[in-house]
Amino acid sequence: MRFLYCGDVMGRSGRKAILEQIPQLRETLGLDFVIVNGENSAHGFGITRKICDAFYDVGVDVITTGNHAWDQREVMNFIDDEPRLLRPLNYPEGTPGRGFHVYEMKDNRRFFVAQVMGRLFMDPLDDPFTMLSAVLDKHVLGRDVHGALVDIHAEATSEKMAMGQYLDGRVSLVAGTHSHIPTADAQILPNGTAYQTDVGMCGDYDSVIGMEKSVPIERFTKKISGRLTPAEGPATLCAVFVETDDETGLAKMVSPVRLGGRLIEITPTL
Amino acid sequence: MRFLYCGDVMGRSGRKAILEQIPQLRETLGLDFVIVNGENSAHGFGITRKICDAFYDVGVDVITTGNHAWDQREVMNFIDDEPRLLRPLNYPEGTPGRGFHVYEMKDNRRFFVAQVMGRLFMDPLDDPFTMLSAVLDKHVLGRDVHGALVDIHAEATSEKMAMGQYLDGRVSLVAGTHSHIPTADAQILPNGTAYQTDVGMCGDYDSVIGMEKSVPIERFTKKISGRLTPAEGPATLCAVFVETDDETGLAKMVSPVRLGGRLIEITPTL
Amino acid sequence: MRFLYCGDVMGRSGRKAILEQIPQLRETLGLDFVIVNGENSAHGFGITRKICDAFYDVGVDVITTGNHAWDQREVMNFIDDEPRLLRPLNYPEGTPGRGFHVYEMKDNRRFFVAQVMGRLFMDPLDDPFTMLSAVLDKHVLGRDVHGALVDIHAEATSEKMAMGQYLDGRVSLVAGTHSHIPTADAQILPNGTAYQTDVGMCGDYDSVIGMEKSVPIERFTKKISGRLTPAEGPATLCAVFVETDDETGLAKMVSPVRLGGRLIEITPTL
Amino acid sequence: MRFLYCGDVMGRSGRKAILEQIPQLRETLGLDFVIVNGENSAHGFGITRKICDAFYDVGVDVITTGNHAWDQREVMNFIDDEPRLLRPLNYPEGTPGRGFHVYEMKDNRRFFVAQVMGRLFMDPLDDPFTMLSAVLDKHVLGRDVHGALVDIHAEATSEKMAMGQYLDGRVSLVAGTHSHIPTADAQILPNGTAYQTDVGMCGDYDSVIGMEKSVPIERFTKKISGRLTPAEGPATLCAVFVETDDETGLAKMVSPVRLGGRLIEITPTL
Ligand SMILES: [Fe+2]
Ligand SMILES: [Fe+2]
Ligand SMILES: [Fe+2]
Ligand SMILES: [Fe+2]
Ligand SMILES: [Fe+2]
Ligand SMILES: [Fe+2]
Ligand SMILES: [Fe+2]
Ligand SMILES: [Fe+2]
Repeated sequence: MRFLYCGDVMGRSGRKAILEQIPQLRETLGLDFVIVNGENSAHGFGITRKICDAFYDVGVDVITTGNHAWDQREVMNFIDDEPRLLRPLNYPEGTPGRGFHVYEMKDNRRFFVAQVMGRLFMDPLDDPFTMLSAVLDKHVLGRDVHGALVDIHAEATSEKMAMGQYLDGRVSLVAGTHSHIPTADAQILPNGTAYQTDVGMCGDYDSVIGMEKSVPIERFTKKISGRLTPAEGPATLCAVFVETDDETGLAKMVSPVRLGGRLIEITPTL
Repeated sequence: MRFLYCGDVMGRSGRKAILEQIPQLRETLGLDFVIVNGENSAHGFGITRKICDAFYDVGVDVITTGNHAWDQREVMNFIDDEPRLLRPLNYPEGTPGRGFHVYEMKDNRRFFVAQVMGRLFMDPLDDPFTMLSAVLDKHVLGRDVHGALVDIHAEATSEKMAMGQYLDGRVSLVAGTHSHIPTADAQILPNGTAYQTDVGMCGDYDSVIGMEKSVPIERFTKKISGRLTPAEGPATLCAVFVETDDETGLAKMVSPVRLGGRLIEITPTL
Repeated sequence: MRFLYCGDVMGRSGRKAILEQIPQLRETLGLDFVIVNGENSAHGFGITRKICDAFYDVGVDVITTGNHAWDQREVMNFIDDEPRLLRPLNYPEGTPGRGFHVYEMKDNRRFFVAQVMGRLFMDPLDDPFTMLSAVLDKHVLGRDVHGALVDIHAEATSEKMAMGQYLDGRVSLVAGTHSHIPTADAQILPNGTAYQTDVGMCGDYDSVIGMEKSVPIERFTKKISGRLTPAEGPATLCAVFVETDDETGLAKMVSPVRLGGRLIEITPTL
Repeated sequence: MRFLYCGDVMGRSGRKAILEQIPQLRETLGLDFVIVNGENSAHGFGITRKICDAFYDVGVDVITTGNHAWDQREVMNFIDDEPRLLRPLNYPEGTPGRGFHVYEMKDNRRFFVAQVMGRLFMDPLDDPFTMLSAVLDKHVLGRDVHGALVDIHAEATSEKMAMGQYLDGRVSLVAGTHSHIPTADAQILPNGTAYQTDVGMCGDYDSVIGMEKSVPIERFTKKISGRLTPAEGPATLCAVFVETDDETGLAKMVSPVRLGGRLIEITPTL
């Protein structure tokens, strides 16, 4: 099976990249499943139902979020009825929405997606490691599900890499999001799980992590600053591509994908 | 001019990569200047005079450090007399050592290196932005110095990228260290400064940011854990290569370098 | 000389306490100078010119602020022309307003007030210790000024107490604000500076640090919560009273003041 | 019932205060139960079995700890067999020791003690609020237990006060520790729970939170500093006294206790 995970979509520039390129990538890469992190798609802050629908229309199967999940308050009204939109698993009991789900694919295979938040340098939350481990005990790769993605939305590289190693052999891919910068460490870990510390954002890299650069620079050098708005230059679509073994669900191949914009382009050689 | 900046050297495995590969890289890449981040070279914690000397012997010109600068106390005894070993610039007045220096190259050109610490999610320190700006006012690229590297040793991608944009046009390269994971965002910014959010470590990537993986996993899941030790598998040497314009000192080309170990290899095509 | 420093005034309830009690306290305590922290006086967030004027009218001489200084944007328009309203000293160069000032009293004596922000668990800022030390070199207690208050607006008790000890002998009082809870550690340090870790707020203590309690509880237990508003019950006015030696400006006596509301009342026995 | 909770005992000076004063306080205050926070009793870092035994000998019934629980490694060897020594409840599953316990008193009444860690500005841990709530569902005050103390070992006043309000009516006393500075906000909350944001330390207040002051000052002003050691002057014993209603277990009276050393003394008027 082949699937693609696209990192934090940043505003209009990032949405444009998703809407224009996903249909073609489904073709050229022979994708069976596409997941997108949408937490910054609504002008940098959150996501709306309209954006979700636009993403589904071009072939996105599942949308993850992160700490910006609730920036657009309307999400709370529909997330309970929309299993294709995930929020972090380790939010407190009673939080709307869900943190993982098993999706039936067109060919009846099952794909598992979960998202957790890291805790280093972030808000206090329950332990994502043991929580994920308990969930995965009931969704065994190669037995209950054919493919499995875990997104760790986190600040610290140490926490993300620890999660990759902790889950190695139990899911197809552990990938990080939230830093908005793609890492160059795609690898298959010793027990067969593909891993990349951060997928990177889909957005304009002539910016400060996707935001028009003057205001963030002000924030680091002055006490008073303006409002953050997404940079509007052409986006680089940043994603991770995985091909799994049909039997085990583990990774046979992992490759970064970077298309358009300012970054050095790369696509998997199939 | 061509120069190379190698990221945090992690323990024995990382040192081996530097000692074995720098002589050859100087040749094949035609390097004029080589800088290495050595803050984790002594079994993961700090650096010793012996390690410094071994690095100089194979062609390293300057060694940077970071928050681990003082882990080996002997450093305090010799850093004042060793301009080739830098510590962060924005440490309090009275801290031993220096945070920047201008190096005379063999052909009489001058190369500027500075290191600052970021402040987001890190210890309280003085503002690295305005401090660097004041220093650079006196060391103008293309007038006073022929090449210039600024290392921002920081946790947050936003702070690193803001520094890149803030200094764009004033130095040859702004590169981050400390996260121990190379980023895939090498680019030349609009005003001619090369930039990469993190150089990545020189170390074993079957690990948690270079440490043998069992103890870091314990630290994220238990309250009591063992001692961190560097992973001992083969290192990937991670670096950033820059070729500058002889006139301006700005970047004509930037490329990541990744050699050996588990990561996808890349070297500049010259 | 006798002066009083009142802690963070929280919303309407806190303002009421100040407006009603300061005139009388000036009398009964024989106060020569009154300083109030006003950073939460405008419905919990910032301060307005109208509130400043109301405070001056009842006998407040100087108003300090803190991290909430700019919550009401109008402050930026008048703070440059209003030396009686201070913001933290260690904000970046170019920040409107001032961080310290020397006030001419009616009897021609001079009173020094400075405010700094702590850095532990707070935003990155320049070092408040060395910055204050440099300022105090030019405003020597007993020579240039007759009384001196330093407010350290900070989270960590360690940083506040270190500041007290660091400045011991150089000012009349070091007092902390920001935690909104009065501490019971008023003392005169060995070299003559009065000290209290936190003055406490002027607000309703049937609350969570002055805010109506249901929303803060939600914030600690749920992911989604409402808007913070000040609790509206009767305030306890919390302050520190100091009597100085006329010769040296050092403290002869220090006492907490707590009046009204739910806390155990205390006033200095003169 | 009357009980006393003494805050963080700091090194030799703090131990001396406990050993000398507890026997007498049991008498004069007519105490039925005494709890002491011992996390800093072993030269500032952790506690030993020998210190525990010395405390039991003078009439301490239960010892709580905090983030310094494991500083003396020997604790791990005996804490599982010593219910009188508690560690924070919200440590990960598998951590040695226990976070709460019900103690049989000499007169067969039962006393409940629990300790949790806060999460603001502290290490990532599971939610102390919901965890305590679940425990208290099984230990109902006035039905299952006659008295109940919850210690919230935390940095932020907001988190401590939110815990007090959250548990109001379900325990006899919510008291904070860890800041090492007593707060002056003892009160009985609307539903009958006594509350004080921080008990304060038992230690020398001519210090920086109990440590000899020169090194902490260095830590705030320099990059390199010496080793922390407890200040050795006379301690102030800081505690909270509560008298409960025999029927309900709720508080009839709460009072701070401060004895000896530099702080203003206070004892309950009975
Ligand atoms: Fe994001
Ligand atoms: Fe995020
Ligand atoms: Fe490092
Ligand atoms: Fe580092
Ligand atoms: Fe405040
Ligand atoms: Fe504040
Ligand atoms: Fe403590
Ligand atoms: Fe503690």
